[in-house]
Amino acid sequence: MGGNSFGKFFCLTSFGESHGLAIGGIIDGCPPGFEINLEKVQHQLSRRRPGQSTLSTQRNEEDQVEFLSGLFEGKSTGTPIGFLIRNKDQKSGDYDALKNVYRPSHADYTYASKYGIRDHRGGGRSSARETIARVVAGTVAEEILKQINVNIVAWVSRVGNIEMKNSQGPFTRQEVDQHLVRCPDFVSAQLMEKAIESVRDEGDSLGGIITCRIDGVPAGWGEPVFDKLHADLGKAMLSINAVKGFSIGSGFEAVSMKGSEHNDEFITTDSGIATKTNHSGGIQGGISNGQPIWFQVAFKPVASIAQVQETVDKDGNAKSLQINGRHDPCVVPRAVPIVESMAALVLIDHWLRTKAINPA
Amino acid sequence: MGGNSFGKFFCLTSFGESHGLAIGGIIDGCPPGFEINLEKVQHQLSRRRPGQSTLSTQRNEEDQVEFLSGLFEGKSTGTPIGFLIRNKDQKSGDYDALKNVYRPSHADYTYASKYGIRDHRGGGRSSARETIARVVAGTVAEEILKQINVNIVAWVSRVGNIEMKNSQGPFTRQEVDQHLVRCPDFVSAQLMEKAIESVRDEGDSLGGIITCRIDGVPAGWGEPVFDKLHADLGKAMLSINAVKGFSIGSGFEAVSMKGSEHNDEFITTDSGIATKTNHSGGIQGGISNGQPIWFQVAFKPVASIAQVQETVDKDGNAKSLQINGRHDPCVVPRAVPIVESMAALVLIDHWLRTKAINPA
Amino acid sequence: MGGNSFGKFFCLTSFGESHGLAIGGIIDGCPPGFEINLEKVQHQLSRRRPGQSTLSTQRNEEDQVEFLSGLFEGKSTGTPIGFLIRNKDQKSGDYDALKNVYRPSHADYTYASKYGIRDHRGGGRSSARETIARVVAGTVAEEILKQINVNIVAWVSRVGNIEMKNSQGPFTRQEVDQHLVRCPDFVSAQLMEKAIESVRDEGDSLGGIITCRIDGVPAGWGEPVFDKLHADLGKAMLSINAVKGFSIGSGFEAVSMKGSEHNDEFITTDSGIATKTNHSGGIQGGISNGQPIWFQVAFKPVASIAQVQETVDKDGNAKSLQINGRHDPCVVPRAVPIVESMAALVLIDHWLRTKAINPA
Amino acid sequence: MGGNSFGKFFCLTSFGESHGLAIGGIIDGCPPGFEINLEKVQHQLSRRRPGQSTLSTQRNEEDQVEFLSGLFEGKSTGTPIGFLIRNKDQKSGDYDALKNVYRPSHADYTYASKYGIRDHRGGGRSSARETIARVVAGTVAEEILKQINVNIVAWVSRVGNIEMKNSQGPFTRQEVDQHLVRCPDFVSAQLMEKAIESVRDEGDSLGGIITCRIDGVPAGWGEPVFDKLHADLGKAMLSINAVKGFSIGSGFEAVSMKGSEHNDEFITTDSGIATKTNHSGGIQGGISNGQPIWFQVAFKPVASIAQVQETVDKDGNAKSLQINGRHDPCVVPRAVPIVESMAALVLIDHWLRTKAINPA
Repeated sequence: MGGNSFGKFFCLTSFGESHGLAIGGIIDGCPPGFEINLEKVQHQLSRRRPGQSTLSTQRNEEDQVEFLSGLFEGKSTGTPIGFLIRNKDQKSGDYDALKNVYRPSHADYTYASKYGIRDHRGGGRSSARETIARVVAGTVAEEILKQINVNIVAWVSRVGNIEMKNSQGPFTRQEVDQHLVRCPDFVSAQLMEKAIESVRDEGDSLGGIITCRIDGVPAGWGEPVFDKLHADLGKAMLSINAVKGFSIGSGFEAVSMKGSEHNDEFITTDSGIATKTNHSGGIQGGISNGQPIWFQVAFKPVASIAQVQETVDKDGNAKSLQINGRHDPCVVPRAVPIVESMAALVLIDHWLRTKAINPA
Repeated sequence: MGGNSFGKFFCLTSFGESHGLAIGGIIDGCPPGFEINLEKVQHQLSRRRPGQSTLSTQRNEEDQVEFLSGLFEGKSTGTPIGFLIRNKDQKSGDYDALKNVYRPSHADYTYASKYGIRDHRGGGRSSARETIARVVAGTVAEEILKQINVNIVAWVSRVGNIEMKNSQGPFTRQEVDQHLVRCPDFVSAQLMEKAIESVRDEGDSLGGIITCRIDGVPAGWGEPVFDKLHADLGKAMLSINAVKGFSIGSGFEAVSMKGSEHNDEFITTDSGIATKTNHSGGIQGGISNGQPIWFQVAFKPVASIAQVQETVDKDGNAKSLQINGRHDPCVVPRAVPIVESMAALVLIDHWLRTKAINPA
Repeated sequence: MGGNSFGKFFCLTSFGESHGLAIGGIIDGCPPGFEINLEKVQHQLSRRRPGQSTLSTQRNEEDQVEFLSGLFEGKSTGTPIGFLIRNKDQKSGDYDALKNVYRPSHADYTYASKYGIRDHRGGGRSSARETIARVVAGTVAEEILKQINVNIVAWVSRVGNIEMKNSQGPFTRQEVDQHLVRCPDFVSAQLMEKAIESVRDEGDSLGGIITCRIDGVPAGWGEPVFDKLHADLGKAMLSINAVKGFSIGSGFEAVSMKGSEHNDEFITTDSGIATKTNHSGGIQGGISNGQPIWFQVAFKPVASIAQVQETVDKDGNAKSLQINGRHDPCVVPRAVPIVESMAALVLIDHWLRTKAINPA
Repeated sequence: MGGNSFGKFFCLTSFGESHGLAIGGIIDGCPPGFEINLEKVQHQLSRRRPGQSTLSTQRNEEDQVEFLSGLFEGKSTGTPIGFLIRNKDQKSGDYDALKNVYRPSHADYTYASKYGIRDHRGGGRSSARETIARVVAGTVAEEILKQINVNIVAWVSRVGNIEMKNSQGPFTRQEVDQHLVRCPDFVSAQLMEKAIESVRDEGDSLGGIITCRIDGVPAGWGEPVFDKLHADLGKAMLSINAVKGFSIGSGFEAVSMKGSEHNDEFITTDSGIATKTNHSGGIQGGISNGQPIWFQVAFKPVASIAQVQETVDKDGNAKSLQINGRHDPCVVPRAVPIVESMAALVLIDHWLRTKAINPA
């Protein structure tokens, strides 16, 4: 009830603070008998890890995951999968000055209000290091989803004011990773890189959008009322640090369309019933319709900036603050595997759910 | 697990199809000893009900709610509140022609794919009549939230391309209801009305945006990781029929801002620690910070239009379709109380949650 | 979170007070496409209903159930099944004298302590009338379980000191219902009847044991750790009014056995792997092993007795109390369908769960 | 959904196999600001650990727990508490002969039926080593409960046919631990010890009963319908390995009592409203009444015995089996802290729940 679990069937519970001993988690409900390639988990972690390029924080963590249970001779056994990543490059000293000062647009003040006590070192539990556990569990989920032909790819479609064209994909992860910005359009990627370098040099930060596309989900996944598939995807994405908005398919652009333009006509194709357009984003009435699922996730600029900022301390006294530490000028390149992982957690959950609902 | 429950503490479970006998629900977890003014429930239902103006569907339902349990001498007893609204103006005959045809951008095809069986009359469970139960439960929640000074007001901030200014409010419900479009800016409201009439006359429909603002939530509500307050608000809103997008605070506009512009500086005011700006939308790190919570919800144009559309039947045969029935040309005016109700359900849930988490 | 829901997959949420307008509930997660014979529901309700014989309370309720949703043309649709039973023979006046007095071994004092407010009429929510909703939902579950060859039969195996032999069955419901005591051993049944009549005439009451046997559950249902199949059965039974004990298989008798006596040797039979004895009660390590599941449920004597009792009122003043109203001298004959229904709810839940856990 | 979580508010999720790398877990929902004495955790683990006396298995595990998160400067922070116990004295080789053979009354066959795959080494997840995580989390819960004056003590009240008198207590843990059998009546304890030694020497095993008493729970904890306090206690106890029965208060003895004998009259004492007798076991209508809570838990004889047994292998072939390994001749002395821990988990959960239900 502390809100550290995600998923009803394939359920991740995570723990760990930024500057504590470890980040880790338990996956409960992983179906048995599936081969899990642990190198794929490590690979996605390397796409998320800090210090991977000049565009990201220089905290240097290997983020080596240790699996403790639930796997036997390379396969899932159906019992819970415990895993652990030790924190190594903690520099708690960086945070001593922040002990009693509330960093603007961080969770310092709200955690203090909620709990009355907090581990201030590096943001404690509110740090994005928490997302490591999401990537581990999400990649285990992906390993299984691949075996039923579900394929998830996310990419950076916008940084600041720079937006790529053709944002519905599909792209491969190789195409996405061609440029360290993780935008598959190389020209846009180069402009995005420059924009990020520019704010980095100013001691500032920049927001962005990640687009995600999922192929291979058959018609029939999702629940009709409160647990609509896109509602669960939306919650998943909005739970990622720094996310301010989510849209499915046509999203906010649907607002200015007419029904006659927006409606996706059904047609019959070689592979069965399909739709001519896909404004629905692959989901109708909360349930997948067999078309690609695609959605967008808006990230705010990172709150940790190097410029001097005005704020208050816990007693309400005005303070000038300069955050040292090591921070990302733009979080979206590293957030790509996090978006993919959260999508995988939602999808595997709804897949398992279809089995319980239609047992015959 | 059928996805018909919402909330972990103050939990609504709902039932009912558009053309079945009744819509109803059970609220479990309502705290005892609170006065509940049932007229307020009926009033919110009247703001949601069909046939209330020339801008909405002409289906004529009184939507009179009967409370069956959980209330004693005007107060909640802590036991479950069962309630019921009988359907009266069902014209199932309108739907016979649709039995085997999939209406574009409706849930007909996806329900059939999921369940293999469906009550086709009026969309069955996928009908927006389901939202009646949300409004009943949400208004009960609001009655309690008011007693701890939490105040929720939503309004139409955009219809098609017509957008009002000053979209952060605050407004009163009286101001919102001055115009049947439920936009508190009268000039914009008149333009919106014209836009809706225009598409209605074309047999078409139009989308819109609802903005919601919540005052009075103290700092400390929400959970840090997966159940962030805005993630739960996002799921709640995305679970409403026809919603395609959700954004909290600065939302998608945050993308093109720099951290130095976006960060909300802390200041000290007469009433304690506050922020100078509110790009965060009242929530930081998933937890309320005491500032007004505000968010936006994007609705697509209604899928039921009077124009002839191309589609297929259940065997994949091409069909021309003309939907008769009675439909809204634009759903946002009637959706205002639904947005308010879902917000109330999220907030009361997180309020109760704070009590369990900080028991001392 | 108010504890009025049971089941994770096939989930019953119930509402209603003894002397309120109605008892009802919602089944969420009922799989689609199953024929549900509603007469069977009414039949089980008639086995539970008051006034059915001289051994039970003379409150006269028809307990006619109305189904409001989730069924279409005789079959489950997968959407929630709402249902309702109106209370008719309420004589609230009987309870006015009890408004401020705490009946011994009833829930009056504990409800007042918990909620600070209570609907005192007939015990309100603590009345065994609440079990009506369990029987409705449990019988719907049974209708589905029968189609996969799971068969549940409970019977009275003991009343006071009178115990029948051969308590593992199997018996048919016809055999059980041959005598109004619902003990399938006619000689014991007659003795039990006499014992009940005897305490009834003294204005007193008597306890008893119900044994339940379930045939047809294949090996593999249940969860290994916290949600062991017999743990869930135990919770289900202990949640029934007046139940004080639960045992699976050998139960408390296992205590004085040696491992070499108690262990169930595996053997191979025509129908596969089986066990020679069944001390395990059909469940090993929390998971069904394909043998009959059998367990026992101990009921205390009904707390409502006609004799004068000493107690206190809400201010702690000593009071002499004589309960009038209409009460059962022994609850076990009417509790048989409740035990069957709760067993059915547990079993269908674990059946659906196996599908989500082993999706391939 | 894999059934490896316990508790809704203070929720333990556990992982780990007998012969895997580690046993561990996550506590989510631990309230912040409470001092947790980690030595107490280690002490309870030492009461549970193997090899502690000649009456228990000679597997030698230190069971040293490492806390990884959620604690800061000796106090709980409200964030999840991750913990880990490495397995050290694994002798997997002992189990090679058992790879394809189903041990009688073990979970080998049922796990294989459920998952189709299993880690056979030492029973894998079905091993009682899993209860380590329960003891860690339960003791953390106890540390908090003590601060609100809730006190839990369990003891061995029966082994085989040897039963102690005065089984309602109260006793202190010191009294319980005076004898390694953990029966606070020294004479009975000595007889129990002899009985255990006797079966051990025969290569056999013996069952027993643990009684648990909880003082200090105020009136008002528990839920009225499905989540009755004793139903949750019952589920908790029945989920422990080898448990076959649970009874609250008078339990199975209530069956042969009359209502006039069994009813607990209310009286007024110096400390408020109380009951004269306590057949209810401190719980009425599922809610605590302020009297001591007491219940009994029946354990079967351990299934692992040294004698030759007849069984079958996975292909159904008859096999003679002799289990080597290291096993307990009677599990109840070591199960005392497990019973206490599970009780603590149930109680803290219901305590937090009262806060959410009565928020004012």
